[in-house]
Amino acid sequence: MKRTTVLIISCLMIMSSMAQQQLGRRPNVKSPVIHQDGSVTFNFFDPTATKVSVTGDFDELTSKRLDMTKQENGVWTVTTAPLAPELYSYSFTVDGQRIVDPANSYVNRDINTLSNIFIVSKSNEDKGHTYAVNNVPHGTLSRVWYDSPTLGQQRRMTVYLPAAYDGKKRFPVMYLLHGWGGDETAWGDLGRASQIMDNLIAEGKCVPMIVVMPNGNPTCDAAPGWWHEGMYVPDGNAFQNRPAKASMEESFMDIVRAIDSRYKTIAKRSGRAVTGLSMGGGHTFGISRLYPEEFDYYGLQSAATMMALGGWLNSQAPKPNAEYDAQMARLFNSKPKLYWIGIGKDDFLMQQNTDLRKYLDSKGYPYEYYENDGGHIWRNWRIYLTIFAQKIFK
Amino acid sequence: MKRTTVLIISCLMIMSSMAQQQLGRRPNVKSPVIHQDGSVTFNFFDPTATKVSVTGDFDELTSKRLDMTKQENGVWTVTTAPLAPELYSYSFTVDGQRIVDPANSYVNRDINTLSNIFIVSKSNEDKGHTYAVNNVPHGTLSRVWYDSPTLGQQRRMTVYLPAAYDGKKRFPVMYLLHGWGGDETAWGDLGRASQIMDNLIAEGKCVPMIVVMPNGNPTCDAAPGWWHEGMYVPDGNAFQNRPAKASMEESFMDIVRAIDSRYKTIAKRSGRAVTGLSMGGGHTFGISRLYPEEFDYYGLQSAATMMALGGWLNSQAPKPNAEYDAQMARLFNSKPKLYWIGIGKDDFLMQQNTDLRKYLDSKGYPYEYYENDGGHIWRNWRIYLTIFAQKIFK
Repeated sequence: MKRTTVLIISCLMIMSSMAQQQLGRRPNVKSPVIHQDGSVTFNFFDPTATKVSVTGDFDELTSKRLDMTKQENGVWTVTTAPLAPELYSYSFTVDGQRIVDPANSYVNRDINTLSNIFIVSKSNEDKGHTYAVNNVPHGTLSRVWYDSPTLGQQRRMTVYLPAAYDGKKRFPVMYLLHGWGGDETAWGDLGRASQIMDNLIAEGKCVPMIVVMPNGNPTCDAAPGWWHEGMYVPDGNAFQNRPAKASMEESFMDIVRAIDSRYKTIAKRSGRAVTGLSMGGGHTFGISRLYPEEFDYYGLQSAATMMALGGWLNSQAPKPNAEYDAQMARLFNSKPKLYWIGIGKDDFLMQQNTDLRKYLDSKGYPYEYYENDGGHIWRNWRIYLTIFAQKIFK
Repeated sequence: MKRTTVLIISCLMIMSSMAQQQLGRRPNVKSPVIHQDGSVTFNFFDPTATKVSVTGDFDELTSKRLDMTKQENGVWTVTTAPLAPELYSYSFTVDGQRIVDPANSYVNRDINTLSNIFIVSKSNEDKGHTYAVNNVPHGTLSRVWYDSPTLGQQRRMTVYLPAAYDGKKRFPVMYLLHGWGGDETAWGDLGRASQIMDNLIAEGKCVPMIVVMPNGNPTCDAAPGWWHEGMYVPDGNAFQNRPAKASMEESFMDIVRAIDSRYKTIAKRSGRAVTGLSMGGGHTFGISRLYPEEFDYYGLQSAATMMALGGWLNSQAPKPNAEYDAQMARLFNSKPKLYWIGIGKDDFLMQQNTDLRKYLDSKGYPYEYYENDGGHIWRNWRIYLTIFAQKIFK
């Protein structure tokens, strides 16, 4: 070998060892390792730590902490019991400090908490399979900016185009809304919207459709880091503490108009569905009252009905009054094809959803109701999306 | 207040305090705080830690560690000297453990290392401004799957469409290639490609164009977590240790065909540029030799010329031989409008770029050469993209 080649290889070896150090000091550590029975082993290299644990949503309702054991080689390890098919989130706690797994480079952000995820799947029929990237035709996921005259802003949204989208054929549109503290990236990340849609469409379980995931905070134009205010730090009330020019619902038709003008859509009621989780369920409720003739399908997921039409997270659920009665009468007189309400038994918003159902029952307004285990968690919203998407445009 | 309202507010308060805990136990901590003179304060709340530091690329060439000081309220803090306009990466080290800043939710992944970033900008004329999200028309950034018959795979790429793209007018296309260990997300994240293009186009400094950022690893179909192999752990050689059906360059026209069939492109030589960094510079070099009449603009950024045409990172730079001579003759006889080579003074690949330039000089083949400070770092590749994009399609 020539001297230059030796020099280059030396440089690369030095870079590579530096990189190894930077990659979390983890020689040959693989984590997580998913076993055939659904049990999962976590590994973490840190010879100097005194206490390491993994915290994840390993049982149905709560997050669970498992202490890890240090082996002679400095790798901490623990193996879970067999887990049911599902997408799980987890993080490590190292001497009191919460960190993501340095061996798992796929990280999700939920509001401003980073977590790793993994998927357990045991057959092509289970939830894990529906949430995974499978070898099926994949749609396109785009970050798109649009003008909102109502909010006086250029705003960012996420748009899923089905694999069959070719710029010629027209497709129906599902508007899919996030919750409090979330943004236009939420449904694509922990919501697994593009994987769920790819898989349901490939299996013929739902019709190919466009899915639009806007930013539901009328005082923000985009997700942190992508907006015009730099590397912003969201905290609990930051999105709501600033005065908004209009509510999400009042500005909502700006989004519909932008989508209809940019994409080949079925630009009428029969080609439009709207659904959202928590605050986005409140927005869906508000949209159903403001625009009863624009959408044929409504889906309220763990809906924070008090957050409709600019309501605050800690405001009271709307009480029927003359305006509310008139809106609901107009809505149901227009005969939407589906008014769907889904919520978990342990959801802290159960009471206001029960109240809404009582109201609908008292008026004889038809709706579909789905109740399952669990509370106000992504695990349920992925299920609700999977169910709702199969019910629309058919 | 009714009892149900009290209950809901209590639930929300509990959730909110849980969220606070989850958000890194950081009451009212803002980090980083960028001051008007360009100095930056980092803050980190951890009353029990014994040693905290911040590491970042705060001077030109190397990363710098600054020890942080603990205040009485448990918040560790340090302020840098005034920094020049630039995009900076950083992380914290807490008792030996590298973590991202829990107060800065915008995180970048480089291969499999997570870092936070921030931008210092002092005027509308500096680099920081070019890398920031400004109030200008924004293009669309999409993750698109295409079929590669050559590799026998469905593969994922990133596509930037300029704000003016309307599905009617045709635009030229720049193919922008990543380096070793990277993937189709690299140029959009640390490369700031969409911000750079938005800003240069808005300022009239470059023509509106489509930018295509494919995955340059022929044994991978997509980035970790988005590919068909689950939450995968890339390590140094994982992408190259598996046999590829063909090299990146041999499969490259699959990408060009997919783009020309899906988008309104100027589907001929005068509407095509290709440029890449490091391994992607090697790919650009290989593409220039294989397809001399398909592209009018070539840009080699810190090029690993030995990685052209399936070469390994630690293989030797190509030596002129009969085939190489014939390829280069054909290339320059076809008179490309630009053959651009950019590299930093301290780049460990300087020698092979110098060898290439000597070869071009000896044959009288015209090229443009740009040399600046620094080495094999993203800071330089953002500069090279900014320069190259302004030179093409004019």
